Amino acid sequence: MDDRTIDWVEGHILTIDQTALPDVVPLRLETVDDVVDAIRRLAVRGAPLIGAAGALGVALAARRSAGTGYQPEAVRADAERIASARPTAVNLRWAVNRVLPHVAAGPDAVLRAALEIVEEDARANEALSRRGAALLRDLVGDMPMALHTHCNAGALATVAWGTALGVVRALHEDGLVRLVLADETRPLLQGARITAVELARLGVNHRVVVDGAAAGLIARGEVDAVVVGADRVAANCDVANKVGTYPLALAAARAGVPFVVAAPESTIDRDTPDGRSIEIEQRDGAEVLELGGRRTAPEDTAALNPAFDVTPADLVTAIVTESRVIWPRKGERA
Amino acid sequence: MDDRTIDWVEGHILTIDQTALPDVVPLRLETVDDVVDAIRRLAVRGAPLIGAAGALGVALAARRSAGTGYQPEAVRADAERIASARPTAVNLRWAVNRVLPHVAAGPDAVLRAALEIVEEDARANEALSRRGAALLRDLVGDMPMALHTHCNAGALATVAWGTALGVVRALHEDGLVRLVLADETRPLLQGARITAVELARLGVNHRVVVDGAAAGLIARGEVDAVVVGADRVAANCDVANKVGTYPLALAAARAGVPFVVAAPESTIDRDTPDGRSIEIEQRDGAEVLELGGRRTAPEDTAALNPAFDVTPADLVTAIVTESRVIWPRKGERA
Repeated sequence: MDDRTIDWVEGHILTIDQTALPDVVPLRLETVDDVVDAIRRLAVRGAPLIGAAGALGVALAARRSAGTGYQPEAVRADAERIASARPTAVNLRWAVNRVLPHVAAGPDAVLRAALEIVEEDARANEALSRRGAALLRDLVGDMPMALHTHCNAGALATVAWGTALGVVRALHEDGLVRLVLADETRPLLQGARITAVELARLGVNHRVVVDGAAAGLIARGEVDAVVVGADRVAANCDVANKVGTYPLALAAARAGVPFVVAAPESTIDRDTPDGRSIEIEQRDGAEVLELGGRRTAPEDTAALNPAFDVTPADLVTAIVTESRVIWPRKGERA
Repeated sequence: MDDRTIDWVEGHILTIDQTALPDVVPLRLETVDDVVDAIRRLAVRGAPLIGAAGALGVALAARRSAGTGYQPEAVRADAERIASARPTAVNLRWAVNRVLPHVAAGPDAVLRAALEIVEEDARANEALSRRGAALLRDLVGDMPMALHTHCNAGALATVAWGTALGVVRALHEDGLVRLVLADETRPLLQGARITAVELARLGVNHRVVVDGAAAGLIARGEVDAVVVGADRVAANCDVANKVGTYPLALAAARAGVPFVVAAPESTIDRDTPDGRSIEIEQRDGAEVLELGGRRTAPEDTAALNPAFDVTPADLVTAIVTESRVIWPRKGERA
């Protein structure tokens, strides 16, 4: 699990195609188009990971430009294409913006800046995982706990360690995880296909549930805490995350169960005042209506497919990052 | 749509296999085993419909017993097998119990009693649909509305008309439905496979959404009212319905959107004091982990698969039946 999900190998980006999971299929990105396409079709997914991929994508653009007479303007245009591949997760634009000042200095400088982001993500996630584990011991008590998570905020959503699943891993290393309930996470089943794979590898006792079952299980006392990742945290601590997160927060608040968001500082966007300002990506209805290549609904039926929802700050017990714990209900801001 | 979903034809029960929808495959039930199997595997589903099927199943048992020298005790034993085929919906046992007193009088008396339940269900659902439509006009206002529903509480869940979708149909006849959002309803996709078929046939504008998207759409003001069916209503007005209903009620309450339960009186169980007393059917994890014949999660991953959840009475705006509107928040009891 300490292997990196993404890295720079021999002048290209090497990662895996996450649409193929639980099968592990390596994915080599050689052009900016490859990077944009991989991010759009969720072959590369998870807010921290698409940040790292975006930064490495700019390095790729710079390297290719250097092969034909280096043109900083062309690299900046490619960077903008990468940054706008998906709208909701803020890490992507944040990472691209961090390497942009190095474009003038040439491809080696861009690559150094990009690799620094990759390194930082791995370090930040380990730190936030340990901080999150300590937080949960405080919130739940020092005993083996049942945790509920949504989508995949694991090592495969980041460079290494993961965010929400990093917290699970850190608790598991101390023998403090009794059970993880993982929402399958429709439409793309990241919970069943990816989180379950990571939990199995870690040796964590787990069960997959349909997304609709989560709230009832929380109400019946089967869950000691909910821990999820985030795609963007607004200044007021509203949290955008994979669609289906908000109902977990509602159920947790009603049951008095802690609802913890684990996200690196790069996920916080102080330029976004609140959840209403977050653009929610609308994806193709075919993701909903086609399952295993077969249509689930009549031919003339259409779908709505928002990829994210917003959990209001007052439903969030705590946000844990690599450097702090934020308490939205105490009026703290991100 | 006025064709009956179930009927007695030439000494057998004729219905359709709802696991094959959107394909329409007729299903002929000739033995008590056929009836129990069809109810267990959800070929026959929907609380009112399994009530009607259960009553007709006892008629089938009586008719077959008459062929080999009528034995009331054997018929009563078959009736008990039918009544316990699924535990959560109360209509099944209610319907079986209603025909039981006629077993002593022979197969014709049992069949008359069963057909009376079938007739009554069709009449009750039409009445509750019209009452529910009037209620929603009062709650939402006399304008084309956007409604959200879960699972399938339509004509195919009943003998005719449906409950929640009966209300939609009655409103649609008056031009008052702008849009219906239908949860796909994992794991068995009754929303995508069955509700969408019914809405398309009725000519109602609709979109399918993944279950996890519902709460966020309600929060964003896309829904004027939520209307669902029920599998059991407890004396205190707690409501058991298809898993994934409770988070809709949480989201509706927070957004100030009416949450209406449409169910015939036969769904009310005054012997169940509250939701804690309702047995929640746990179904096979394979329903969650196998999609279109392919496994979604690693081989060593298991699932939890509760088929229902309980919505507490304080989240229910109103329960509409064929004879009344119940207001749980005013302390009214079922």
